[in-house]
Amino acid sequence: MQSGGALQWRRSLTRRVAINPPMKFCTQCGSAVDLLIPAGDNLPRHVCGQCGEIHYLNPKVVVGCVPQWEERILLCRRAIEPRYGLWTLPAGFLENNETTMEGAARETLEEAAARVKVTQLYGLFNLPHINQVYVMFLADLVRPEFGPGTESLEVALYDERDIPWDRIAFPVVEQTLKLYFADRRQGRFAVHTGDIVRLPGPERVFEVRMLEV
Amino acid sequence: MQSGGALQWRRSLTRRVAINPPMKFCTQCGSAVDLLIPAGDNLPRHVCGQCGEIHYLNPKVVVGCVPQWEERILLCRRAIEPRYGLWTLPAGFLENNETTMEGAARETLEEAAARVKVTQLYGLFNLPHINQVYVMFLADLVRPEFGPGTESLEVALYDERDIPWDRIAFPVVEQTLKLYFADRRQGRFAVHTGDIVRLPGPERVFEVRMLEV
Repeated sequence: MQSGGALQWRRSLTRRVAINPPMKFCTQCGSAVDLLIPAGDNLPRHVCGQCGEIHYLNPKVVVGCVPQWEERILLCRRAIEPRYGLWTLPAGFLENNETTMEGAARETLEEAAARVKVTQLYGLFNLPHINQVYVMFLADLVRPEFGPGTESLEVALYDERDIPWDRIAFPVVEQTLKLYFADRRQGRFAVHTGDIVRLPGPERVFEVRMLEV
Repeated sequence: MQSGGALQWRRSLTRRVAINPPMKFCTQCGSAVDLLIPAGDNLPRHVCGQCGEIHYLNPKVVVGCVPQWEERILLCRRAIEPRYGLWTLPAGFLENNETTMEGAARETLEEAAARVKVTQLYGLFNLPHINQVYVMFLADLVRPEFGPGTESLEVALYDERDIPWDRIAFPVVEQTLKLYFADRRQGRFAVHTGDIVRLPGPERVFEVRMLEV
């Protein structure tokens, strides 16, 4: 066992960056796995040379929301990597045995100490380069009470004109906010679907492709 | 190495039933894992007693579509367990490095040998009792050409009046079809969000809770 501090560090790193280190050993028998295409399949999988177990790795779901209070929305400033110090909407990995709406509300409670009522699905965004699917909801704060959870430096309600556009943590959050304010001006919130893909190369350049209905 | 046949059987079982057998050994060092709540966390995780790695298990995404051709929709009769011989919409687990729309089209090609153009997001359904999130799209067949893939006994286009309601494989498929035909009668396809939860007990009884906007 490592110390609590080391575990805490590992947890933040593993959970929030969603690093899935390459599988080396079988979860069922502890023997070494090989990366190969099983019979009847068409993609390489981690297969145990000893017990034959095939291990499937699949994308993870990130759930979050746009928490609303009157004309303002709640943003959190990140106290963890990646993108330490930048602003984001509350969001995090969906857990087993919870629904996406429950997960969005839980993340808002954890990161912003705020209770919300989820009102509608708002966006489904594919981030295939990091194997994540973001599911974003609209939500109403139950009360105008909030504060920084352990993963936030600060939490604040923002009017549209004050949104720190040049300090938003993630493209998927920026896209969600852009769509949100555009919809609000039109007086109607649609449900949006699209891909947000990081282009190859050292620069952080992303391509947004929305599925327009 | 086991024989191809055994691997094939294991694959069908593991992949399609989404059995995730309990983790016993660390994927990084092959040592035994313990189920415990790491410091700073609030849920039990599989933690390696040797190298300290924390393993997170999260829900999987199932992607599928309602493939449309003129007034009819395409259904597949399952050639695999569970629910062998019953009818379903093409759907399956989202793979790493693909988008949900790509996955829905791929599953339709694999299960029904049909090419589709995905047109809109149609439903997001939580199945928390089996740790799955279904993402269903509407899609148009590119051509009226289809046939059974290896996981289907037969594939057919159905008019609404001929849908085999008493032989639909899964509640999530039944719910998607009900919403689809109700929307079609109204001349407008919304995006639906809800939970489909199996109630405790030996009977296959499900509760459907839609998030109404």
